[in-house]
Amino acid sequence: MQLTQASVRVPATSANLGPGFDCLGLAVTRYLEVSATLSQNDTFSYTGTGRVADTPDNLTHQGFRAAFARVGKAAPKVSVTARNTIPLARGLGSSSAALVAGAALADTFLGDALGRDGVFQLAAGLEGHPDNVAPAVYGGFTVSAQTDTGYLCQTLPLPERWHLLFAVPETELLTREARAVLPQTYTRADTIFNTSRCALWTTAVAMDKPDLLRVASQDRLHEPYREPLIPGLASCRKALLDAGANAAFLSGAGPTLGAICSESVVPEQLLEVLQTFAGEGEVLELRASRGYQFQDLRF
Amino acid sequence: MQLTQASVRVPATSANLGPGFDCLGLAVTRYLEVSATLSQNDTFSYTGTGRVADTPDNLTHQGFRAAFARVGKAAPKVSVTARNTIPLARGLGSSSAALVAGAALADTFLGDALGRDGVFQLAAGLEGHPDNVAPAVYGGFTVSAQTDTGYLCQTLPLPERWHLLFAVPETELLTREARAVLPQTYTRADTIFNTSRCALWTTAVAMDKPDLLRVASQDRLHEPYREPLIPGLASCRKALLDAGANAAFLSGAGPTLGAICSESVVPEQLLEVLQTFAGEGEVLELRASRGYQFQDLRF
Repeated sequence: MQLTQASVRVPATSANLGPGFDCLGLAVTRYLEVSATLSQNDTFSYTGTGRVADTPDNLTHQGFRAAFARVGKAAPKVSVTARNTIPLARGLGSSSAALVAGAALADTFLGDALGRDGVFQLAAGLEGHPDNVAPAVYGGFTVSAQTDTGYLCQTLPLPERWHLLFAVPETELLTREARAVLPQTYTRADTIFNTSRCALWTTAVAMDKPDLLRVASQDRLHEPYREPLIPGLASCRKALLDAGANAAFLSGAGPTLGAICSESVVPEQLLEVLQTFAGEGEVLELRASRGYQFQDLRF
Repeated sequence: MQLTQASVRVPATSANLGPGFDCLGLAVTRYLEVSATLSQNDTFSYTGTGRVADTPDNLTHQGFRAAFARVGKAAPKVSVTARNTIPLARGLGSSSAALVAGAALADTFLGDALGRDGVFQLAAGLEGHPDNVAPAVYGGFTVSAQTDTGYLCQTLPLPERWHLLFAVPETELLTREARAVLPQTYTRADTIFNTSRCALWTTAVAMDKPDLLRVASQDRLHEPYREPLIPGLASCRKALLDAGANAAFLSGAGPTLGAICSESVVPEQLLEVLQTFAGEGEVLELRASRGYQFQDLRF
């Protein structure tokens, strides 16, 4: 019997995490849920955060079609319904989630022809960098790299006691604007600054050493250049560390500010700093998530 | 009763390991053993690999005096005897071992006033970078970084089944020459290439995933620039990977070539490639070592 319907749940993701530009990422407990049903026409219906046009040229359909194209098949028409709690265009991986959802759903209709790594390769290629797609696919804390032949990813479980906090402002920041301000070259000192901190971040996760994060989350590749685009970033980062956060960093290209706290209870003052940064926006208290999961739910 | 004699054993170290310029390191099972005895005069006696002048201006005495200076005390005169199996000026951390030995011995005479981290801070400061000093002090696989206030290091145990192989040519290469060929800036792509691989190297160690090392040991910060100084580097690296090595990299600034093999028995062909690279020099089959240890031995 041919499959006619499938549903998938894809986590929000926070990339970069300070020094890990285009290589470190984290899956967190906000979700895009997408259901696809074989249909006479491509349709798209969206409910959730922000506004997304109800047109079949959305990222989920693009990921869906690209997966069929990858295996040399024409994509069937599908009626897609999306429910989303991931903030849009805030640096929490909503675009990657949509691409991964489409590719993963297509892979189900294709009888697992791509597999999880194939979905990762496809979606990372569509994005052009693997840092959000990797945790959306594999979950946890991910280290990923572009190679001669595609992308490589290894996931590590995040220590369960670590709180993942995000201050999500109301204003959007488009990734392409946030990329335009970056320099083309870096000094050797800045390069070593970031290589050492990427290795330290990974060590902090692997050994459950949150005390390393204060240094490990420092960055010289993108945050200093993006600070002018994001008012209050530098002062809030400092205030978060003073209030007991182990780490404070831009989530993706921003404007969301991420923080990690390993204390059993998150200090009230830390939450206040995050709310100040978020302004009219919201503060999210999240945990690490698994990668995408298929669901029985039809909605 | 005042201490009048102390002995310490400091391991050889391999730094950089491909992408980890100035931040990744590994302690290996070759040793500098140093005994110091309070004396009327500073004297130095050396036996072991290579030739070291019998003068009291050597690195061990420098480390010793710097440790006393750090706590604001005048260093006593000491008669130093060194026995060394670490190749000199080959990229296996003989200089760092000598500095660490002197600082650690001084710390013993000072009643542990600096402690192990103090010895690390002092010796890394004298070297100007922490990548060899960190494993000499802490052992295992080390991730270290320069910070606003000094240096930070975290050690991870290396999986026991990993073989550490080194082809040590007869020719020396001075670190300052090997540093002079490096560029002052790097492209964003090369920078991300190395940050991602430093994080992957660390992941490979933490998760015992040697298969990641083939990508994780790639470098764009120093090896491409040092290849002209080290004949046969590029072809031997490729031959090592073809022969079953998980990783191949310059040890420190070279000329020693390091390789890692996780198979239960190192393939004969792999050892042959290493011997070809070493020429009249030697091939070392080593394991990961602990950091410096005080010994009862007087010699």
